[in-house]
Amino acid sequence: MASSEVECYQMDRESRGLALIINNENFHHATRMNKRSGTDVDARNLSRIFKKLGFDVQVYKDLSCISMLEVINEVSTMDHTGNDCCFVAFLSHGDDGCVYGTDGIVQIKKIVDQFRGDVCPSLAGKPKIFLFQACRGTLHETSVQLSVDVVDGEDQPCVEVDAAPVPTLPSGSDYLFCYSVAEGYYSHRDTLYGSWFIQDFTDVMEQLVLNKDFIDVLTVVNRKVSARRVERSYSQQALGKKQMPCYLSMLTKKLYLTPKKK
Amino acid sequence: MASSEVECYQMDRESRGLALIINNENFHHATRMNKRSGTDVDARNLSRIFKKLGFDVQVYKDLSCISMLEVINEVSTMDHTGNDCCFVAFLSHGDDGCVYGTDGIVQIKKIVDQFRGDVCPSLAGKPKIFLFQACRGTLHETSVQLSVDVVDGEDQPCVEVDAAPVPTLPSGSDYLFCYSVAEGYYSHRDTLYGSWFIQDFTDVMEQLVLNKDFIDVLTVVNRKVSARRVERSYSQQALGKKQMPCYLSMLTKKLYLTPKKK
Amino acid sequence: MASSEVECYQMDRESRGLALIINNENFHHATRMNKRSGTDVDARNLSRIFKKLGFDVQVYKDLSCISMLEVINEVSTMDHTGNDCCFVAFLSHGDDGCVYGTDGIVQIKKIVDQFRGDVCPSLAGKPKIFLFQACRGTLHETSVQLSVDVVDGEDQPCVEVDAAPVPTLPSGSDYLFCYSVAEGYYSHRDTLYGSWFIQDFTDVMEQLVLNKDFIDVLTVVNRKVSARRVERSYSQQALGKKQMPCYLSMLTKKLYLTPKKK
Amino acid sequence: MASSEVECYQMDRESRGLALIINNENFHHATRMNKRSGTDVDARNLSRIFKKLGFDVQVYKDLSCISMLEVINEVSTMDHTGNDCCFVAFLSHGDDGCVYGTDGIVQIKKIVDQFRGDVCPSLAGKPKIFLFQACRGTLHETSVQLSVDVVDGEDQPCVEVDAAPVPTLPSGSDYLFCYSVAEGYYSHRDTLYGSWFIQDFTDVMEQLVLNKDFIDVLTVVNRKVSARRVERSYSQQALGKKQMPCYLSMLTKKLYLTPKKK
Ligand SMILES: [Zn+2]
Ligand SMILES: [Zn+2]
Ligand SMILES: [Zn+2]
Ligand SMILES: [Zn+2]
Repeated sequence: MASSEVECYQMDRESRGLALIINNENFHHATRMNKRSGTDVDARNLSRIFKKLGFDVQVYKDLSCISMLEVINEVSTMDHTGNDCCFVAFLSHGDDGCVYGTDGIVQIKKIVDQFRGDVCPSLAGKPKIFLFQACRGTLHETSVQLSVDVVDGEDQPCVEVDAAPVPTLPSGSDYLFCYSVAEGYYSHRDTLYGSWFIQDFTDVMEQLVLNKDFIDVLTVVNRKVSARRVERSYSQQALGKKQMPCYLSMLTKKLYLTPKKK
Repeated sequence: MASSEVECYQMDRESRGLALIINNENFHHATRMNKRSGTDVDARNLSRIFKKLGFDVQVYKDLSCISMLEVINEVSTMDHTGNDCCFVAFLSHGDDGCVYGTDGIVQIKKIVDQFRGDVCPSLAGKPKIFLFQACRGTLHETSVQLSVDVVDGEDQPCVEVDAAPVPTLPSGSDYLFCYSVAEGYYSHRDTLYGSWFIQDFTDVMEQLVLNKDFIDVLTVVNRKVSARRVERSYSQQALGKKQMPCYLSMLTKKLYLTPKKK
Repeated sequence: MASSEVECYQMDRESRGLALIINNENFHHATRMNKRSGTDVDARNLSRIFKKLGFDVQVYKDLSCISMLEVINEVSTMDHTGNDCCFVAFLSHGDDGCVYGTDGIVQIKKIVDQFRGDVCPSLAGKPKIFLFQACRGTLHETSVQLSVDVVDGEDQPCVEVDAAPVPTLPSGSDYLFCYSVAEGYYSHRDTLYGSWFIQDFTDVMEQLVLNKDFIDVLTVVNRKVSARRVERSYSQQALGKKQMPCYLSMLTKKLYLTPKKK
Repeated sequence: MASSEVECYQMDRESRGLALIINNENFHHATRMNKRSGTDVDARNLSRIFKKLGFDVQVYKDLSCISMLEVINEVSTMDHTGNDCCFVAFLSHGDDGCVYGTDGIVQIKKIVDQFRGDVCPSLAGKPKIFLFQACRGTLHETSVQLSVDVVDGEDQPCVEVDAAPVPTLPSGSDYLFCYSVAEGYYSHRDTLYGSWFIQDFTDVMEQLVLNKDFIDVLTVVNRKVSARRVERSYSQQALGKKQMPCYLSMLTKKLYLTPKKK
């Protein structure tokens, strides 16, 4: 029988691992999904912090569904033997259990299942972290999404408000899912500074990741984001809408992402 | 803007709070749900550890759906002002987003929503922990559940295998959901020693709760349970079936359940 | 290979069959479901028309979930050998794929599956008709449900508006599901005259069933109900809300319910 | 109050209307969806019968998700004023409430909602018929789909067996949804003769449409398809698997598709 000790994931292999960031801003007209202004800020922030932590960061912009599946397939079939872990982030629109490519939806389950221990053995026993800054399709109609014209002299950061995704996921040891928002809440994205979730995630990572474990980081992010209020928005409905992130953990050990020693 | 410090929930109020344990073993014939032999062991284990930690433990056996709703309603409408937190555990059969009373199903959402900050203000900002040792209805037909006849001299602990629940939950700051099993896995219950999840949860709590936070405990439980294998079972299908617990956190601070000083 | 002729169900056996009507008006306080005033009118109407058509009508009032399951179990396990068909109607509150007993919810699938050809052979090849005058739980909070006190001199028939159920059903040859309302619409119930759907269903049956088949009847009911508008209601939200019934057919022949000759 | 007469849809306008057939046979490798051999036979059959009935038939082969949305958008925004009705058929793989484009999934709801009376007024009050010869994704892994090599001298018609779609639809007056299979059943497609559903649908249409209404046709199709058995298949699991089509009707009148007089 396994011991009751608190263990930590081994994080001293040759490489930290891959940090894949899929950043979708522009969507095909036929999908009726709005441009996600501010998402590039999120992508830059995530990119910066994960590079700092020793990840091999790969950022993809505006991927179609097929391209997303192909990139995921590449990542899940590559050899992660010398890697500590794998991190995958989606910055996009979302819907029930789906995430948007530029031209439609992809089921999150199809993405995540490709990393299971039996299918992706070089990541077995290693943390597989998925982060979703996404929002649910049904509430797009009610949100006001005025694109702020950056050309204007006076930049009015405007909070665009979308709906929440559904963290219905599961499946597989050593998975961690980080959701920008729990069901029923709004996922706020500021057109100048990026989304609340990624802003706060990056800030907290910068400050705490040297000596706190990743779950502690996510807990602080939960607190910071849920404390925010919508002050300025063109949408009456957005005012006062709170945001509650959440994380679903199948991790079996503590995860420290302290930068790798050279 | 909220700070990026790791904060801890205040745990030094007059009372630790209520630990409600709903223990359903026997189900009405018309529900076609098997007797959950071994669940009393779980109830005793949970009861013991939470009493030790200063909770006001209340155990209910074999509650009908209405009774479950009434108990939950009582708990959610009482005054928790002097309490640190609230803990609610369900030991029962489960189904998609539902948990079984002795005579049918109750939607988990209906239970959990009653504790939201706006509805239950005396628990606002305080940890609301829900634990589910449950299993999904659809896979009951495939599992073999032979009740071990205690009258026999030789007690053969037998692992009964059920299906998994779906952690589809969400909603509300400071909630923590602890699931015995993630979607797609089996929830094992040993007729003599109780369920794997509650056995390991109790063991780990006994050993770690003095100086580790609750999330650390759940992480170790994830490891221990997922390391277990089915050795002995009357069901061929059960052999080799692994179990992966998981927890969904909307906590905003670290939760230490160290016993209260007198 | 089966012929392409239009065939009709054999309707000249010794007995027409059972017409089971489950009429739930009063719900346990803990379910938070309102009293369904006007439902007795529906029950009387259905009862009258099905008696006329030669059915063995059995009406049950205010059944708990267990009682509903037991009654269904009795009906599905009895010998329908000398019967033409079987008809089961639910007048109650509803929710996603569920129907309400007085004390909670029952999954429609669990009810319907008990009549499948392999489980209920004496109904194999015979029409199994399920009718649901129900409404979805989530929208109860938004609807105004003022019970009109019949004792008052001035009876103001008031249209109570609930939400729609989800016809997600299926499964099995010779099933027909008649829903008072399709997803996204409201199910209107007049406290004096009964629900729109049952009122119109009964009227059309009275007028057409002698020489039209049952599907033709349902089609006319679709038209009549969808043409109605809410004129008087205490709920602002109710005004203007349309209702669209629907039926899901796995029938393999035309169904004529002309009264049996003596 | 609307009369209780059986009415028929007006079918004598200038044009019968559009019959859109989306025929997807080849799927991008990344979707892991098999080639749907035999689907061209279905497309030809549907095309032939609907041309005969006076429809303006448009067949599209192997459409991506975006293309499907664009075609649907074109059709729903065009002026149907001089048309009797509109018919849209999908021959593809399917999944929970979705239908496959060559490169991914599209939510059926998104397609169907575009034809609602308020959005597509020139079709208001006119029959909007949707036919799905599709199958559910989750069971593709269990079905054996050996493509029969037509180049071989000896063509062994082989029944490929997929899983069932979920007819969860609804919404809107005058819609009719025809599903090749109800939930829980298999959708059979013969690589030489096309799918069972479309074969039988076309046969019955040929024989009955002159003097029977469309619902009668679908009822006979229900009977014929459900009577079929799998005789020859490379998949052991396929043998014996029955298929039960179904239709969901929000039609308000009888629908006769007799050919238009010149
Ligand atoms: Zn969005
Ligand atoms: Zn169970
Ligand atoms: Zn209701
Ligand atoms: Zn398929």
